[in-house]
Amino acid sequence: MIERIPILKLGPFLLLSIQVDMHDQLALDLQEDLTEQIVRHKAKGVLIDISALEIVDSFIGRMLSHIAQVSRILDAKVIVVGMQPAVAITLVELGLSLEGIATALNMEKGMRRLEAMVAADESLEESEGGEDTDASTPPGD
Amino acid sequence: MIERIPILKLGPFLLLSIQVDMHDQLALDLQEDLTEQIVRHKAKGVLIDISALEIVDSFIGRMLSHIAQVSRILDAKVIVVGMQPAVAITLVELGLSLEGIATALNMEKGMRRLEAMVAADESLEESEGGEDTDASTPPGD
Repeated sequence: MIERIPILKLGPFLLLSIQVDMHDQLALDLQEDLTEQIVRHKAKGVLIDISALEIVDSFIGRMLSHIAQVSRILDAKVIVVGMQPAVAITLVELGLSLEGIATALNMEKGMRRLEAMVAADESLEESEGGEDTDASTPPGD
Repeated sequence: MIERIPILKLGPFLLLSIQVDMHDQLALDLQEDLTEQIVRHKAKGVLIDISALEIVDSFIGRMLSHIAQVSRILDAKVIVVGMQPAVAITLVELGLSLEGIATALNMEKGMRRLEAMVAADESLEESEGGEDTDASTPPGD
């Protein structure tokens, strides 16, 4: 079995595809690796593909929320792509709303959405005339 | 366990990240899915990330070769990225040379290499004066 979920860098974004059953250590390692890489590469966004997952339980839901929160603090956008219809239905039935997590149908749409989110942020920063202080960061939620 | 390895479309390329132990059915399904998607999306290249693999045995080696051969017939380039150093050493020791498979250190380098390969091909086609059919198609589609 794999020990780490690979994180691929693509321009200003990081890409990861979750294909295996997550367990505690794998999830912890993923969060650690991702935070480290966001900082190292100054990543502006993270794209998480979950098209291989047939089940998203509350453990994975919490992990995604956690990743989204940490990324937001590091000023990187997060988008989850490729969710299967059955997964969406189950999430709603379970009352897991993936709050604060942006989603897109597939990777291409997700990439475009990420680019738009980053561009909107940058134009906002410019119009406010200062990027050295993040007090001007708009509330992402 | 997952039943299909997800294939992500990104512009003219397809991207897949192999993270799980391959077995016969998974490998067959992957080859079938990939061929189908190359044709459906008119993909010009396939990028295969194997950074999660700590072992590449002869089974995976043959699968990669097979994918490369089929893709070539469908006029799509294949590049394997993210190979771990230990994997490279093992491959050489086993006498598995991954013949005919281009490699790159990471996804970004692989993507650039794919773009260069596709561009080289297109300029060749143009200089040959467009063989009568789709060789003269503008790169727009």
